[in-house]
Amino acid sequence: MAPDHGFTVTYRFKGGVDEALARAHDLRYEQTVEFPPDLTPDRIAQTIVGQVVGHEPDPAGGHRVTIAYPTGVAAGELTQFLNVVFGNSSIKPGIRVERFDLSVEALAPFRGPRFGRAGLRAKLGAPTRPLLCTALKPMGLSPGELARQAYQFALGGIDLIKDDHGLSDQTFAPYSERVRACVAAVADANAKTGYRSLYLPNVTAPLDRIVDRAFAVREAGASGLLISPGLTGFDAARLLAADDALSLPLISHPALLGSFTVSPDAGFSHFALYGQLGRLAGIDAVVFPSWGGRFAFTREECAAIARGTLESMGALAPSFPAPGGGMKRERVQEMLDVYGRDVIFLIGGDLHRPGPDLADTSWRFRELVEAYA
Amino acid sequence: MAPDHGFTVTYRFKGGVDEALARAHDLRYEQTVEFPPDLTPDRIAQTIVGQVVGHEPDPAGGHRVTIAYPTGVAAGELTQFLNVVFGNSSIKPGIRVERFDLSVEALAPFRGPRFGRAGLRAKLGAPTRPLLCTALKPMGLSPGELARQAYQFALGGIDLIKDDHGLSDQTFAPYSERVRACVAAVADANAKTGYRSLYLPNVTAPLDRIVDRAFAVREAGASGLLISPGLTGFDAARLLAADDALSLPLISHPALLGSFTVSPDAGFSHFALYGQLGRLAGIDAVVFPSWGGRFAFTREECAAIARGTLESMGALAPSFPAPGGGMKRERVQEMLDVYGRDVIFLIGGDLHRPGPDLADTSWRFRELVEAYA
Repeated sequence: MAPDHGFTVTYRFKGGVDEALARAHDLRYEQTVEFPPDLTPDRIAQTIVGQVVGHEPDPAGGHRVTIAYPTGVAAGELTQFLNVVFGNSSIKPGIRVERFDLSVEALAPFRGPRFGRAGLRAKLGAPTRPLLCTALKPMGLSPGELARQAYQFALGGIDLIKDDHGLSDQTFAPYSERVRACVAAVADANAKTGYRSLYLPNVTAPLDRIVDRAFAVREAGASGLLISPGLTGFDAARLLAADDALSLPLISHPALLGSFTVSPDAGFSHFALYGQLGRLAGIDAVVFPSWGGRFAFTREECAAIARGTLESMGALAPSFPAPGGGMKRERVQEMLDVYGRDVIFLIGGDLHRPGPDLADTSWRFRELVEAYA
Repeated sequence: MAPDHGFTVTYRFKGGVDEALARAHDLRYEQTVEFPPDLTPDRIAQTIVGQVVGHEPDPAGGHRVTIAYPTGVAAGELTQFLNVVFGNSSIKPGIRVERFDLSVEALAPFRGPRFGRAGLRAKLGAPTRPLLCTALKPMGLSPGELARQAYQFALGGIDLIKDDHGLSDQTFAPYSERVRACVAAVADANAKTGYRSLYLPNVTAPLDRIVDRAFAVREAGASGLLISPGLTGFDAARLLAADDALSLPLISHPALLGSFTVSPDAGFSHFALYGQLGRLAGIDAVVFPSWGGRFAFTREECAAIARGTLESMGALAPSFPAPGGGMKRERVQEMLDVYGRDVIFLIGGDLHRPGPDLADTSWRFRELVEAYA
């Protein structure tokens, strides 16, 4: 529940209540003043240092402690907010960020997803059914080959056609050439089908080129952006989402973020990292590996991500969960059981498996999800 | 050892040789084409997909496998380089990046540390002795109070006086005002002592403000920058280090990076993350928590970081290890045994412990390290 002022972070500590409270006492100093408590002036201890506001045993083991921080320590910056949440304490074992809750005041600097679930559905003209997403791959194809793929996917009714997250500006598929070719291909297909498939180029790039690449996308006529916040920092997403002149939906890829959730006793919970943080950074749809594929997330972790994209967060729009990996026809029902219809199914290699007619294979998935409208 | 072409990454897998080689086979596809091997065209398998070039048991357990990637897949970008090194595989358990080695060709886009060990020593006029660093803290002090601290530290001969990494642009110590006040204070002290203490403001900030803050530092007359690449992304450091017009030394703080080294079987080795990657990104001095303090790095992990800052890396200058935490007078010898004299001792709270005369306490540490010139 969001506090009246400032923001709270709920940490899970290994061990029992006494150990957790002792460590939480250290942590509230570590995350703010990073200074010995006995040397910290009273006025600073009272106005800057975090305060323990609640604690409870965690059913999964360990003990949860919630710490409240004043809004001002985060300076209205996502970078400094993350620093207060977990900067130094990320280096200590046996502490995990389970969730955070921001007051209206602390949320003020963050607009969150510009489109969110409703906005993305409106863009696609798909008010209720599950959405479909795929990636242009494998890396190594030429812009022309990628564009032919994009055309087929759009023809088959895939809603969101994104660059594979490994496509940046390689000589075999230069950024500008690829974007122009794929935009044209998807537009051609849309003209035939009457659908509104979106092409989302990858703007994960060196810092000084991200914004330029994003605006190049807009000028070329593409309709969304892919970014990997683990590679660029989450603030890159925030910056793009906040840009009124850009105004494009943003889908995130989890590259390099795995280390934050690989230990159940460290890093961030799936709920906080993929659900809450992505949304705070303005991501409209968050890609993550669903259970049952070649990655190791559990069904419960995936469900927690979906909850995090929807959890009440002031006026911030909910984002879309976009589970990838292991999506097969026969798994649709069990995935809908967990995610509901507000989900984007990301289908990669499985679209290529049945044969070269990608439009036909795409269309079979499209028919499948249309049954759930 | 650096390859003739492209770059190699050495991964450690849990388990024995057969399991490691099977997982490495998957990984070399996962990190490049992210596509089923049997569907990957031959020319792409041969020119884009990584190749296993060596393997050996790891004395610490598990098995190491080295994979060679072509230079071109990284597109000359630090963000995409990191993606190829560990993007998707970070999400799989039981894989750790132990080290990477770049050929001269793959290193070409990276200038590395602009100053490095020799350049920083030249700036400080300290050719051989260990260097001293401290942070202005606690957060909550006003610019005037922080400036008075900076003055005392400089008077006492602390070489590098950095903002605490939690100081950004809070209302209680606005960035511009703080920088101006501390620059003036350190300049005053230097004029008295004849030393060349450097003040390094924190430029960890929202992406669209990092470069502006860095140039504001230069205009105000400050002499270096502090950045937390875990908060901004490593490419922010690369961008600042590469800027000829800026030309300021860069010291990094490990905020939020802890999750990458918290598990011995996942993430990055300390050697690769703090030693190699910091240096590739152009960091001149890398702060990390030394063993024996309130963090959990071991003596061996700290030694590995120091080796990573010095390991041969083409023409890249070696960076300085800057171990923090737990530095006390009686520990100097054991720390020098591990780090050698090419070290920056970061002393935080312990400079405040003996009493309010920070200049005097600083001077005692300075005398101590001068004995090792």
